[in-house]
Amino acid sequence: MQAEIIAVGAELLTPYRQDTNSLFLTDRLNRMGIEVTRKTIVGDDRKQIAGTFAEALRRAELVISIGGLGPTEDDQTREAAAEALGRRLRRDEAVLREIQERFRRYGRAMAPVNERQALVPEGAEPLPNPNGTAPGLWIEADGRLLVLLPGPPRELMPMFLGQVEPRLRERAGDRRLLTRELRTTGLPEADVEQLIAPIYTRYEGVQTTLLAAPGEVQIHLRAWTRQPEQAARTLDELVERITLALGRHVFTTQGEALEEVVARLLNAHHATLALAESITGGLIAQRLTSIPGSSSYLVGGIVCYSNEVKTAWVGVPGELIRQKGAVSAEVALALAQQIRERSGAALGLGITGIAGPGGGTAEKPVGTVFVALSDGRRALERSAHFPGDRERIRWQASQLALDLIRRYFQFPAGQH
Amino acid sequence: MQAEIIAVGAELLTPYRQDTNSLFLTDRLNRMGIEVTRKTIVGDDRKQIAGTFAEALRRAELVISIGGLGPTEDDQTREAAAEALGRRLRRDEAVLREIQERFRRYGRAMAPVNERQALVPEGAEPLPNPNGTAPGLWIEADGRLLVLLPGPPRELMPMFLGQVEPRLRERAGDRRLLTRELRTTGLPEADVEQLIAPIYTRYEGVQTTLLAAPGEVQIHLRAWTRQPEQAARTLDELVERITLALGRHVFTTQGEALEEVVARLLNAHHATLALAESITGGLIAQRLTSIPGSSSYLVGGIVCYSNEVKTAWVGVPGELIRQKGAVSAEVALALAQQIRERSGAALGLGITGIAGPGGGTAEKPVGTVFVALSDGRRALERSAHFPGDRERIRWQASQLALDLIRRYFQFPAGQH
Repeated sequence: MQAEIIAVGAELLTPYRQDTNSLFLTDRLNRMGIEVTRKTIVGDDRKQIAGTFAEALRRAELVISIGGLGPTEDDQTREAAAEALGRRLRRDEAVLREIQERFRRYGRAMAPVNERQALVPEGAEPLPNPNGTAPGLWIEADGRLLVLLPGPPRELMPMFLGQVEPRLRERAGDRRLLTRELRTTGLPEADVEQLIAPIYTRYEGVQTTLLAAPGEVQIHLRAWTRQPEQAARTLDELVERITLALGRHVFTTQGEALEEVVARLLNAHHATLALAESITGGLIAQRLTSIPGSSSYLVGGIVCYSNEVKTAWVGVPGELIRQKGAVSAEVALALAQQIRERSGAALGLGITGIAGPGGGTAEKPVGTVFVALSDGRRALERSAHFPGDRERIRWQASQLALDLIRRYFQFPAGQH
Repeated sequence: MQAEIIAVGAELLTPYRQDTNSLFLTDRLNRMGIEVTRKTIVGDDRKQIAGTFAEALRRAELVISIGGLGPTEDDQTREAAAEALGRRLRRDEAVLREIQERFRRYGRAMAPVNERQALVPEGAEPLPNPNGTAPGLWIEADGRLLVLLPGPPRELMPMFLGQVEPRLRERAGDRRLLTRELRTTGLPEADVEQLIAPIYTRYEGVQTTLLAAPGEVQIHLRAWTRQPEQAARTLDELVERITLALGRHVFTTQGEALEEVVARLLNAHHATLALAESITGGLIAQRLTSIPGSSSYLVGGIVCYSNEVKTAWVGVPGELIRQKGAVSAEVALALAQQIRERSGAALGLGITGIAGPGGGTAEKPVGTVFVALSDGRRALERSAHFPGDRERIRWQASQLALDLIRRYFQFPAGQH
């Protein structure tokens, strides 16, 4: 089964706002074996919407629209659906009572415009909306299906999950989409591609997509199948071969964020951590504390932008900073060792660098980063020179630091 | 002039990836007075792409496509354009030489598949690509214009800015889009809407869009005009009236992020700041240090998740934590006062709360936040109970804290 998604709304054609509902819908549809073959974003013009509906219904068995079901004149999706299907709109008294009831419950008077929301194309079935006034609509037409959903995610999501998905599942057939996701860090996208293209191109039934983010390359594997067990074996084999080819650069085969992997490792080893962040300014702490339960391993962190704070709060000797510079391997190491000692944590991590746009020199240009991790006996150290703007450099620096912690646990024998 | 944007690529029809190039293009087109009336996302199927081109060219004077210009069999945009226009593809020797030259420069052998990138529909004009092998194409057809751009942003953006925009500007006419953006915090979207709808609905020539983000509502004003001076006066008047209606909740009329406003205020007052973050775990420090030059006002920060660190590093009396609880107005105030004293900063900010999902009680449920700002003489204090998940709660908490700093400077007489 193939589907098209149509998002309606003038605000989706501005530079400020993007349709994100279609990502949720695509995920849910794919899980049922329904492929999304096109997405269209149109404004609030009735003729344009009607034309889009008619074209989409010629191509796809299932057409889902998002938005334009509100009470105001801007909202033209109901009218456009009726026009595209050549049907009349009728007022649905049950829908009207529900809307009136909703207003009564909230102690507000219903504006006359809201009556428009009770208009329904002939033969359409309203989908109740417990989270708003706009009902959805389920419309069968010549063996095709047109489903109209409201735009706000907190209305659309429960309506789709509760009312649309169960009915679609019945007719979706036995085709399924199986997926796997690997994530790597420390290799540019081109290198990942070069290493794994000779492998994945031999798997014709698997769609492989590489997505590059700062300091990370994700590898998405997708297989459409009617034989899920066999396809799962194929995908697992491919995951294994890719992992072998990329080695220690793969930090997850489960689609986890790097901070989740690090949190899991710290918990599994009952290890605690303290941070002394200069260049990242709290970003590493923020990422680690975004994981529930982070208080069990994160003792605390210090954001030590100034040399004075590096010395007074963390304990880096002022003499060392003067001799080597605040951005140096020696200061990163001292930050790691000192924060560990002062906090009583099992591990101390220190990071320093130049995020720019100013502050770079010929010897230490913008993008230079030094990071160190100390456990009291030994220390792992890394340095890098990252491209990009301030935000990109800081994010890559946080990836480098988190990856150092991961490698400390996963490859204790060295060769990090 | 009206334009449609067509993004090509199977990966844009997965749940993982979204077309973002169209936001950049829409912004640039809008500035020239060109309105985007539709966006379409299609897979790598030649027939589908060709059909989309043909339909779009019937509706709009300008059609811009993104992606599908690579060397592999997946890449079908060139062929689809030729098919839609009924033109043949010819090999452009100059383009071929450029691609060969590029490979030579990087010391790599050109694969035979790359020859496909030198195919050009008859009458099309290649747009050189200094950042990749895929040239763009500029194609005039019966008074309409079809422009094909490569997908990677670092190829698309310079090509559009350097080669497409100057030529479009010549024919775009004298219609212009003027925009204004206000941002507010501390009011839910529905309240903002209720306060300003009676105002903005009276300005018929201005499109007003409200966008809600956690802890923030943005108000976008857009006016299409041939009389820019008059429209600018109208917009400025509307901005003034909206600002009056929303009062202190407006933190910018220039489209700035809240951390930018706070950074500007700290700099303007030559004030320094130190942070003691529990619930936000480094998020406030990270946001402030994302602004270049933050070392001039941010002395440092401590991420104090555990009670021990609150006491040992920041100096909150253990007795106070035992009596009032780590999540309390008293501990937020002590964090603010102590971090200020220990750091020597002009201002100290302390924040504590429960981000969840665990840790809530009947008295202090998940989402409870206490924040305090001390200047040594007096303290501002706030508390809130935020809805949403962990990420949303932490972000709203950081908004509340940053807004407290803003109000300290902007409304020194009180009533924050």
